[in-house]
Amino acid sequence: MRSSRAYRHRVRALRRQLAAAGCDGLLVTHLPNVFYLCGFTGSAGALLVRAGGCVLFTDGRYAVQAKQEGHATRVVVSAAGPLKAAGEYLRPREAARLGIEQAHLTLAQITVLKASGGHKVRLRRTAGLVEALRAVKQPEEVALMRKAARLAQGVLAEVLPLVRPGVREIELAAELEYRMRLAGASGPAFDTIVASGPRTALPHARPTSRRLRQNELVLFDLGAILSNYCCDLTRTVFLGRAPKRVRAWHRAVWEAHEAARQAVRPEAPWEDVDRAARQVLERHQLDQYFTHSTGHGLGIEVHEDPRLARGQKKLLQAGNAITIEPGVYLEGVGGIRIEDDIEVTAQGHRPITRMDSELIQL
Amino acid sequence: MRSSRAYRHRVRALRRQLAAAGCDGLLVTHLPNVFYLCGFTGSAGALLVRAGGCVLFTDGRYAVQAKQEGHATRVVVSAAGPLKAAGEYLRPREAARLGIEQAHLTLAQITVLKASGGHKVRLRRTAGLVEALRAVKQPEEVALMRKAARLAQGVLAEVLPLVRPGVREIELAAELEYRMRLAGASGPAFDTIVASGPRTALPHARPTSRRLRQNELVLFDLGAILSNYCCDLTRTVFLGRAPKRVRAWHRAVWEAHEAARQAVRPEAPWEDVDRAARQVLERHQLDQYFTHSTGHGLGIEVHEDPRLARGQKKLLQAGNAITIEPGVYLEGVGGIRIEDDIEVTAQGHRPITRMDSELIQL
Repeated sequence: MRSSRAYRHRVRALRRQLAAAGCDGLLVTHLPNVFYLCGFTGSAGALLVRAGGCVLFTDGRYAVQAKQEGHATRVVVSAAGPLKAAGEYLRPREAARLGIEQAHLTLAQITVLKASGGHKVRLRRTAGLVEALRAVKQPEEVALMRKAARLAQGVLAEVLPLVRPGVREIELAAELEYRMRLAGASGPAFDTIVASGPRTALPHARPTSRRLRQNELVLFDLGAILSNYCCDLTRTVFLGRAPKRVRAWHRAVWEAHEAARQAVRPEAPWEDVDRAARQVLERHQLDQYFTHSTGHGLGIEVHEDPRLARGQKKLLQAGNAITIEPGVYLEGVGGIRIEDDIEVTAQGHRPITRMDSELIQL
Repeated sequence: MRSSRAYRHRVRALRRQLAAAGCDGLLVTHLPNVFYLCGFTGSAGALLVRAGGCVLFTDGRYAVQAKQEGHATRVVVSAAGPLKAAGEYLRPREAARLGIEQAHLTLAQITVLKASGGHKVRLRRTAGLVEALRAVKQPEEVALMRKAARLAQGVLAEVLPLVRPGVREIELAAELEYRMRLAGASGPAFDTIVASGPRTALPHARPTSRRLRQNELVLFDLGAILSNYCCDLTRTVFLGRAPKRVRAWHRAVWEAHEAARQAVRPEAPWEDVDRAARQVLERHQLDQYFTHSTGHGLGIEVHEDPRLARGQKKLLQAGNAITIEPGVYLEGVGGIRIEDDIEVTAQGHRPITRMDSELIQL
């Protein structure tokens, strides 16, 4: 658990943003944001951040937990749910310009909040205020991500010797998740991907009962959540001696990966990192097979800002934690992806994941 | 994979609802609803349901998968994301009253949709149209839930012999999830709960590295996702010979569970099932320790309609699949919950999970 001081620091930073946005307070409803600001990890919660302090709204299932782990000034437990409870809490209080998180509040929730809060609570849309704070990691956060990364790397290294013809994709996924758990992860950061043969051409394949065969690609994309922080790691291996064509594709993806990594520095536009990878694959005439973006931020969530994609003009900042994950996917043939996590530093970048990225031939 | 015919049947049922709601079409953005209507399981998708057919919008990561598993009339792949793509698709077409799912579309998404769709697309809020269809399961859906239930029961029965003093909560959670995977589950339906000693008083406890001790309660709450359908099962065991007080609590929870189960029949108000459990616990002067509702629907999601809670006046229907899960939680002491899944039938109810619910003393 982080110190109360760390949370107070985050809340103060948010209050400065709120003042600039013309809000008297913010009703934080996105759970990863609630966790970031007060440490509460329950699945039902809303945090009201105002000048006077933070009020955490939750339901009876989390009454004990909210007191144990939540760093809010006050906890309100209500069977009516966090939103209605927040509205009822605000209703008798003076008029307020209440910020809401437009990326997370649904139309139905707005209706509940307006009905319970009454007409004196005037809602103001805000966009990504807490997310912007979260995108710039504190050193202690990156340290947790490095621990998660070491865990996932260790587990992948343990499981690679089990990769052989006849084994099912789901068996390998089960092994990876089991070992992540035993090593202390609270769970996988996302559905673990183990794809083999032509299924590697599906960038987000789910493991099936397909058995691995000799002379085919196997792709692993895994992440662990450790102390509430995520990592995200992909390696592609070949069962047998890879044909020249596969080695050339892997080499091209590796070069794209390295080019993207080298493009990472503070003040670089997000899209530049994506372009760096894409240009390398263009030279290899593989760019049409690179069907997703080059990377994404990660931390408390496995997909956060920055978005390393075409058209993203915002600038990287020291403290960003991002994935670099170019890939090529040839329908019916196979796919290759190499993914690492790195930290943006004042000097450029520093690895979070550290694992050999050569083509592994088993 | 379900047949195209089953999907067409669902889409036709939805179109009748849409006509009644005065909509020319519905943009389905909640992914479990998208899956229900067309079978697509990707993490980025929106389905436009209109008289002419269904259009599935997704991004490049799911281009192949959408064609393989999606039963839409047409697939549109766009790097701009499903919502913007849907708006752009609708823009040049004739004016339309487009239904949106108010419980799932955020303010930010509405903004994207309005900007890309232009002023001719008039948005109409809809509430729970697809959810209402999903709440009444088809026999083939309940059959899948029974398979998921058998899987989870079998895995819990396998793991119970491993429950002994010195074992860590996370080790047992890892075993449960590993064995669910190996047995064919695509994953746990929610974060598996293994709580021991005083931690059983946290209804939604996360497994920790705490070691089990002799003479304490251990609570298991687990669910498997099998063929995209969930189950949800809770048993509480005692390590050693349970003291009289604990046996009395367990007995009271069991009686509350049975009373709730017996209250289940078509046309019974949802709240009546909750009240039946609560009244039993009142008689045992334990009702103040029952801090959540009695149950919830489940299916493609682990929390669906119906909501078996106070104030819920809607009526049960044959085809509903629900959990019955009363519990008592004494802060600092411990908690007990017994959870089963049942199907509402014309005659009353039929079990989905089948496992002994006596207090297990290990």
